[in-house]
Amino acid sequence: MTPVTTGSEKSLRELFVEAATEAIEDAGVDKLDSMYVGNMMSGYLQQQEHLGALMATAIGRESIPSYKVEDACASGGVVTNAGVKAVLSGMEEVVLVGAVEKLSGYTTPEVTSGLMMAEDRNKVATTGISFVGLNALIARRYMHQYKVTSEDLAEFPVLCHENALVNPRVQFHKKITVDDVLRSPLVADPLRLLDCSAIGDGSAALILAPSDIAKKFADSPVEIEASAVATDRLSLYQRPDVTVFEASRKAAAQAYSAASVKPDDIDVLELHDAFSALGIMALEDLGFERKGSRARLVKEGVCSREGRLPTNTFGGLKAGGHPVGASGVYQIAELALQLSSRADKCQVPDAEIGLAQSIGGIGTTVAVHVLRRGN
Amino acid sequence: MTPVTTGSEKSLRELFVEAATEAIEDAGVDKLDSMYVGNMMSGYLQQQEHLGALMATAIGRESIPSYKVEDACASGGVVTNAGVKAVLSGMEEVVLVGAVEKLSGYTTPEVTSGLMMAEDRNKVATTGISFVGLNALIARRYMHQYKVTSEDLAEFPVLCHENALVNPRVQFHKKITVDDVLRSPLVADPLRLLDCSAIGDGSAALILAPSDIAKKFADSPVEIEASAVATDRLSLYQRPDVTVFEASRKAAAQAYSAASVKPDDIDVLELHDAFSALGIMALEDLGFERKGSRARLVKEGVCSREGRLPTNTFGGLKAGGHPVGASGVYQIAELALQLSSRADKCQVPDAEIGLAQSIGGIGTTVAVHVLRRGN
Repeated sequence: MTPVTTGSEKSLRELFVEAATEAIEDAGVDKLDSMYVGNMMSGYLQQQEHLGALMATAIGRESIPSYKVEDACASGGVVTNAGVKAVLSGMEEVVLVGAVEKLSGYTTPEVTSGLMMAEDRNKVATTGISFVGLNALIARRYMHQYKVTSEDLAEFPVLCHENALVNPRVQFHKKITVDDVLRSPLVADPLRLLDCSAIGDGSAALILAPSDIAKKFADSPVEIEASAVATDRLSLYQRPDVTVFEASRKAAAQAYSAASVKPDDIDVLELHDAFSALGIMALEDLGFERKGSRARLVKEGVCSREGRLPTNTFGGLKAGGHPVGASGVYQIAELALQLSSRADKCQVPDAEIGLAQSIGGIGTTVAVHVLRRGN
Repeated sequence: MTPVTTGSEKSLRELFVEAATEAIEDAGVDKLDSMYVGNMMSGYLQQQEHLGALMATAIGRESIPSYKVEDACASGGVVTNAGVKAVLSGMEEVVLVGAVEKLSGYTTPEVTSGLMMAEDRNKVATTGISFVGLNALIARRYMHQYKVTSEDLAEFPVLCHENALVNPRVQFHKKITVDDVLRSPLVADPLRLLDCSAIGDGSAALILAPSDIAKKFADSPVEIEASAVATDRLSLYQRPDVTVFEASRKAAAQAYSAASVKPDDIDVLELHDAFSALGIMALEDLGFERKGSRARLVKEGVCSREGRLPTNTFGGLKAGGHPVGASGVYQIAELALQLSSRADKCQVPDAEIGLAQSIGGIGTTVAVHVLRRGN
């Protein structure tokens, strides 16, 4: 994982090379059979496509199969799913999954406009609403329907900023309080500045392989037990209840089933908290607590690094950073470090099973991965 | 396959829905396990990403895994490769592979600029050269090195226009001669207007499934015997010899090996003739004749519909049409029709084995598929 930064001087290509090179060296693999590149914005912002061959060339692997997978903010989760399928297909063994996004260096209108590519630009962007605005609508309805307060939502960014303090790769090293969140400027009512993840640049990469091959490179490689993707209707206006992300529920149900685990078995958790309400809602949609629990698990310390269900140990999208199409790979890389006891100061004790949730659009596409400590 | 048109009144979404719906109805499947959307330009031209969920919603399948695969002009070939891996992974059985591109409705500078996203915009587009210009450099060097003439190159578009005459889905119904090609306006020396495929809109879709599942829906479903992807250095200036597409050779070698066939076994062929020289070069790079054969197979009628190796029976990218990210799926759909004796007036007799070659960038990424008549 490259550090997530605001205004990286590195190009999209340089960021990817840094992460991919680190992953290849860390895994100790020499030959790659293929690679998959996760990214959302390159066509719109960098006006560059064909990232598959571009990145393969950039890392000196200019002959292997390589292509781009795009799925808005879930591109990182979904490119991992593509890598898993490649390995399971038997067509490829040692596979690089890398994702990258560079959002800085562009104007706020450019990036704001680009983020609306995750929703329906033809039918929805024309109303003038922004991507933050859509998430604000969800948060407002959720607060109304379940009597959730702004204080409740603020618990999630406070947790993430606390976790990020000890992580050298995060975007923000800054302890914040619930009061700080409530006093921060309003972005889109009810979401305030500290409810929202920021624009970030970064790249993360993984090496995937069948278990028997992976064991040649690591004593106890982390196992991917489940990789599930589900979708919902693209647009908010098409859904009967915007306070539930059906795609989260479906992807989670499939992942729990494939991994033969239940929410109680999860020891470490990475949630897609692009906005504070999404983190709280995810705890519910993924089955960790009842709908409308008002951030109880966070308030009671269950989600803290020392708690029973350490959550967003990397710092989450809020404090760790949200390089949009790459965030899903950051989450899985963080779980891999946790489950192999290599997370340094972020390390939680005795984690056996981890879960990562990556969201594309406004809860539209959700990728859920379950990972298990190697044995 | 939707008809390929210049200036379709249908949107990107409507084109995809038309092709996907036709594929689903034609195959007679009700339940889809997942879908994959091939496309190159939507972020740049339509300023729309998240096509996975967008298209799943548009065809009323808004819960299944669905994501976009991008690989420049090879997006169609490569999204098929993604679909094949999904089926082979065992995670999904009935899979929709659809690809779509809409290039009309934009200015020539916009589309010309967009096509350079297939090469390296940072380092190459800044020289002022266009995508056609890069292909002209290749053609010029190829002509010089192998004593190939403009007359030789012109044989390929003449063949494609001849084939297209009986196909209702093509962009151009117009018989042309070698003289017509040579007298058409110069676009980028040595390429003339009739050496070049045109800007087109279209969408094509396939239904993939394991053989045993497919047999529930069709008496003798066409088999995909090989799906291979290879890459080369992204940019022309990085290659030792621009007259050979190493990615074509590698992908073809892998595909021949996986399918246990050799060039002589191929009965029907779809080549990526975005420019006339590419069609001629492909016959060589894929092993059908020696380098520098000056279009011998075309001149001798071997590649004609009545010949031993009917080539571009759909009409090719030149006359059939080149909706960039979709063309690779058109090729495979055409082979599927040929190999199931459903190609109507385009039908060639007794074809058992077909091969499709899809190119991304300037020979940078190549996907080769080998299909076999079901039994």
